[in-house]
Amino acid sequence: MSTQPSKTLETFPNPHPERDYTIHMEVPEFTCLCPKTGQPDFATILIDFVPDQLCVELKSLKMYMWSFREEGGFHEAMTNRIADDIVAAINPRFLRLTGRWNVRGGIWTNVVVEHRQDGWAPAPKVELP
Amino acid sequence: MSTQPSKTLETFPNPHPERDYTIHMEVPEFTCLCPKTGQPDFATILIDFVPDQLCVELKSLKMYMWSFREEGGFHEAMTNRIADDIVAAINPRFLRLTGRWNVRGGIWTNVVVEHRQDGWAPAPKVELP
Amino acid sequence: MSTQPSKTLETFPNPHPERDYTIHMEVPEFTCLCPKTGQPDFATILIDFVPDQLCVELKSLKMYMWSFREEGGFHEAMTNRIADDIVAAINPRFLRLTGRWNVRGGIWTNVVVEHRQDGWAPAPKVELP
Amino acid sequence: MSTQPSKTLETFPNPHPERDYTIHMEVPEFTCLCPKTGQPDFATILIDFVPDQLCVELKSLKMYMWSFREEGGFHEAMTNRIADDIVAAINPRFLRLTGRWNVRGGIWTNVVVEHRQDGWAPAPKVELP
Amino acid sequence: MSTQPSKTLETFPNPHPERDYTIHMEVPEFTCLCPKTGQPDFATILIDFVPDQLCVELKSLKMYMWSFREEGGFHEAMTNRIADDIVAAINPRFLRLTGRWNVRGGIWTNVVVEHRQDGWAPAPKVELP
Amino acid sequence: MSTQPSKTLETFPNPHPERDYTIHMEVPEFTCLCPKTGQPDFATILIDFVPDQLCVELKSLKMYMWSFREEGGFHEAMTNRIADDIVAAINPRFLRLTGRWNVRGGIWTNVVVEHRQDGWAPAPKVELP
Amino acid sequence: MSTQPSKTLETFPNPHPERDYTIHMEVPEFTCLCPKTGQPDFATILIDFVPDQLCVELKSLKMYMWSFREEGGFHEAMTNRIADDIVAAINPRFLRLTGRWNVRGGIWTNVVVEHRQDGWAPAPKVELP
Amino acid sequence: MSTQPSKTLETFPNPHPERDYTIHMEVPEFTCLCPKTGQPDFATILIDFVPDQLCVELKSLKMYMWSFREEGGFHEAMTNRIADDIVAAINPRFLRLTGRWNVRGGIWTNVVVEHRQDGWAPAPKVELP
Amino acid sequence: MSTQPSKTLETFPNPHPERDYTIHMEVPEFTCLCPKTGQPDFATILIDFVPDQLCVELKSLKMYMWSFREEGGFHEAMTNRIADDIVAAINPRFLRLTGRWNVRGGIWTNVVVEHRQDGWAPAPKVELP
Amino acid sequence: MSTQPSKTLETFPNPHPERDYTIHMEVPEFTCLCPKTGQPDFATILIDFVPDQLCVELKSLKMYMWSFREEGGFHEAMTNRIADDIVAAINPRFLRLTGRWNVRGGIWTNVVVEHRQDGWAPAPKVELP
Ligand SMILES: [Ca+2]
Ligand SMILES: [Ca+2]
Ligand SMILES: [Ca+2]
Ligand SMILES: [Ca+2]
Ligand SMILES: [Ca+2]
Ligand SMILES: [Ca+2]
Ligand SMILES: [Ca+2]
Ligand SMILES: [Ca+2]
Ligand SMILES: [Ca+2]
Ligand SMILES: [Ca+2]
Ligand SMILES: [Ca+2]
Ligand SMILES: [Ca+2]
Ligand SMILES: [Ca+2]
Ligand SMILES: [Ca+2]
Ligand SMILES: [Ca+2]
Ligand SMILES: [Ca+2]
Repeated sequence: MSTQPSKTLETFPNPHPERDYTIHMEVPEFTCLCPKTGQPDFATILIDFVPDQLCVELKSLKMYMWSFREEGGFHEAMTNRIADDIVAAINPRFLRLTGRWNVRGGIWTNVVVEHRQDGWAPAPKVELP
Repeated sequence: MSTQPSKTLETFPNPHPERDYTIHMEVPEFTCLCPKTGQPDFATILIDFVPDQLCVELKSLKMYMWSFREEGGFHEAMTNRIADDIVAAINPRFLRLTGRWNVRGGIWTNVVVEHRQDGWAPAPKVELP
Repeated sequence: MSTQPSKTLETFPNPHPERDYTIHMEVPEFTCLCPKTGQPDFATILIDFVPDQLCVELKSLKMYMWSFREEGGFHEAMTNRIADDIVAAINPRFLRLTGRWNVRGGIWTNVVVEHRQDGWAPAPKVELP
Repeated sequence: MSTQPSKTLETFPNPHPERDYTIHMEVPEFTCLCPKTGQPDFATILIDFVPDQLCVELKSLKMYMWSFREEGGFHEAMTNRIADDIVAAINPRFLRLTGRWNVRGGIWTNVVVEHRQDGWAPAPKVELP
Repeated sequence: MSTQPSKTLETFPNPHPERDYTIHMEVPEFTCLCPKTGQPDFATILIDFVPDQLCVELKSLKMYMWSFREEGGFHEAMTNRIADDIVAAINPRFLRLTGRWNVRGGIWTNVVVEHRQDGWAPAPKVELP
Repeated sequence: MSTQPSKTLETFPNPHPERDYTIHMEVPEFTCLCPKTGQPDFATILIDFVPDQLCVELKSLKMYMWSFREEGGFHEAMTNRIADDIVAAINPRFLRLTGRWNVRGGIWTNVVVEHRQDGWAPAPKVELP
Repeated sequence: MSTQPSKTLETFPNPHPERDYTIHMEVPEFTCLCPKTGQPDFATILIDFVPDQLCVELKSLKMYMWSFREEGGFHEAMTNRIADDIVAAINPRFLRLTGRWNVRGGIWTNVVVEHRQDGWAPAPKVELP
Repeated sequence: MSTQPSKTLETFPNPHPERDYTIHMEVPEFTCLCPKTGQPDFATILIDFVPDQLCVELKSLKMYMWSFREEGGFHEAMTNRIADDIVAAINPRFLRLTGRWNVRGGIWTNVVVEHRQDGWAPAPKVELP
Repeated sequence: MSTQPSKTLETFPNPHPERDYTIHMEVPEFTCLCPKTGQPDFATILIDFVPDQLCVELKSLKMYMWSFREEGGFHEAMTNRIADDIVAAINPRFLRLTGRWNVRGGIWTNVVVEHRQDGWAPAPKVELP
Repeated sequence: MSTQPSKTLETFPNPHPERDYTIHMEVPEFTCLCPKTGQPDFATILIDFVPDQLCVELKSLKMYMWSFREEGGFHEAMTNRIADDIVAAINPRFLRLTGRWNVRGGIWTNVVVEHRQDGWAPAPKVELP
């Protein structure tokens, strides 16, 4: 695997596809460009997913995030796009993709996008006391 | 777009109207006037919404918040009014508008107002373990 | 309105009775007397309510809290009484009244009391991701 | 009431048995002995309950907690026993008893035990926005 | 019991099998090896379970965690394996096993795995106000 | 010793007058009255001192703090007065008295007063790395 | 005293001019205008001073801070000016004036200005262990 | 070494007596008895020292702390005594012994005691920016 | 002033060169490239300075930080270079430049560089109690 | 450079030996063995140094920390040894090495070791207000 920015998300087989379980990832080092001004934008990207047959490979995820360094996009569109790319790569049973964008104009913005496979539902939540 | 206080909330087309997703904004720099004493009041305004066909433009939101600088209003009425204005501008599928008002008389006050489109309901919440 | 301790809670008309919305107040400066020893007790009082036709006026709320300064009462009875007084004054659709009492004998005690109007139920909670 | 360690939990009549309400107590000063080694164990005990006809008296609760100072017991059994003793003393509509035991062998352990009266159910939770 | 790393999880009889209750353990000192590079990985392991007939013995749990010190495994597989081992040892009514893995490549990863006995369901959660 | 508010600070002999050492006390439950409006003021009082021949007795300190409940005084004067009273009672080698007064008019105020015996100087501070 | 914005800082005689002591004030509700864009700026103003013959009156301080609401000024100049005004009003033995300005362009800025009377020096700091 | 409470503090040779260095220990599980009421007191004990020829052995320190479980003593005297015992056992170049005692009567108390060898002074503190 | 990345730091005259005062800036959005691997590095840059005749203009500082987006440099060299550039632009009486670099290889690194004008010394620090 | 545990600390020339500056590193993933029981010990290692002609290379530092994974050593000796190794490798003008060792027997232990070159002294600390 090369060490270059790349839109290709590499995958590996989910070692336990027989059960639903959760993978949570935090990427505090995301930067892209503002499509209006060309100035850098910064965000923390949070990924929560229930894998189906594939998991996302950690190093390629880092290269993927790097690949936005020279690209422009509004917060809403960019967050939706990253969600779409992860769905295309690993088709998870469930995905929640959160972009916590840095303050601009004195205002903080988060965008949260979800995707679930047709027919998939989570097991009833067990809330332990 | 001018850089003046303005009650006009500018909008742009939601880039992903095909799915429900959440936008969360925090505006820590809100100030208006107390209708009884004329003295300044301060609040942090939190906006959570699920866009329908429109999103609210960030810079115009800043100008909108600025426009209350010389206006008076009680906490309850002011928080409801901001919610109504955002609904009028973008008709979101869902809106939650929170005003965290600064301490007065040794008492802290928050006001939380919600609006939802007729017939809209959120997808069942997925609570990952 | 006088600036004297008073059990009278003044009210004003709810400016938006057409919708359910939430008012949250925190009163960190509550003190009364222990009915056993006569020594001062201290608490933070939290008020969460959904107003119906009336809201509680902030300054009179401060005078009301002051009015307990010379009165004795056990934590459980005192917290229930404040809840009853607010219900009598504004008949809210819903009230949650919390007393966070200061440590006594090395033990911290909170008391939480709720009241709701007959037939009132909250709108289903929208839990945004 | 004597100031001696005692397994007797004194009670007083619930001043508001006509409504369900919650009492939360935190006891950060609990210590007993490890039944294997005889060495001291330490815990914070949390008590959440909905009283029925009786409440637990604060000072006797302190003496009760003191009474374990010379007794041994495993974390799981000790936490269950304290829950059983409180149920026997005040027969609450609901009890949640939590023991947050201090680190042993580099591992932190909490034990949470609940009891509810036959036929009792909480009012539907009101989750305010 | 020897003081050696060991995959054997020792158990003791649940002292209160007549009720569901929760045991929560935190193990901040977990380390294994990366299967790709052989370098050490570190994690905090969280264990939440409702015991059935058996509980897991604390000291053997420490030896069990130690036993991974020289073993390699991906985060997803390792977390699932520990869950499987605990299920095999004590067959709990419910288990939630969380691995909070340390940052690698600027990305934080948590993995959460659950298991429940056929036919077991938790009592309805009592959410006190 | 009676359980009444009292300006008398009881003392006991310093058990180790042969060395300088520090006693730090925090009194979060102080309340007096505003001399302008008669309304209650609240503060946390911090006491740091190096005892000479006398220490201040804990219960009488509580009664002393209680004794201000019906008295008026500005923040600056009140904080200086408490310092003077403690100096008069125990003549410490050094005293630092801090009043952290609650927010009034949106402004927080702390007042810090010190006293030292003639000729007393602290040992050079040992700042460990 | 009127309830209007005013540059006049009212004073009262220091009740304890015979000793150096410290008054610390926090004003989280400061807003003025950016001299370049006319848009609102926000800051928290911290005031630490050792009074000489005069103290600053709390309510007039609030009116003084209010008086900047329609004025423009750069962070550096504005912070220095407030310091100069307080020095002119009460001529303290020492003043430290801190402006914590809100984020602009992704950058946070604090400005700290000090003034001391000719010939004044603090007593050697007593650093208690 | 026996596993019994014991006033004997075991020691081992300082492995690096050629340089001053700092050992900091925190003992959050200290309990003794109030000499007035016989009720349990609780504290966290902090130990900072620069060893000379001896260090204090960790397990014996735990047994030493245990040995106060049945003993009474005022906060000031107890803290001084522990300091004296450690000095007697290891004669450190410098010792700072802090007792953070739990709240009693609504008041928190810390006691800090220091000892240094005749003629010892710390190296000038290097304060890195 | 253009909105392009630029190594030119624009300045403006210090409005109060007659006194030493402190300006503290925090830039959480700094990114450059690792000179070994070409991968992005991220840091928060802290700037503390006492201005002489010039201050640094905020917007040009943002453009300056942006200008490193495509440049490589080791943490130690990069932090020193930014310090040198600021000194060259405004020749402050004192500068402290801190780079808090993000975790790499499981290790966090900060670098702190200072510069002071020949002959400049700070006024003795006033440490208020 | 190989990816194996190694006691060799690789170095590179200090890019700015003409000035004193500070490098601070945090290594939260340190583990070795207890020399008494053979069980794993865990610590966070903090390194603060002023480089002279050499800096320590980050990746070799990680391999160095890894090299203790199979070695035994008491906290005091281990912390001193790491300090000695870094001094031997880069001969810094100043080094402060801190080991924050995990809780054992309910007691937390930190060890802090310093080294400075003969004749080196830090520049007087500039404490900005
Ligand atoms: Ca961010
Ligand atoms: Ca946010
Ligand atoms: Ca606020
Ligand atoms: Ca309280
Ligand atoms: Ca509590
Ligand atoms: Ca504990
Ligand atoms: Ca971790
Ligand atoms: Ca307070
Ligand atoms: Ca303050
Ligand atoms: Ca601010
Ligand atoms: Ca700052
Ligand atoms: Ca304690
Ligand atoms: Ca304290
Ligand atoms: Ca960072
Ligand atoms: Ca650790
Ligand atoms: Ca520690």
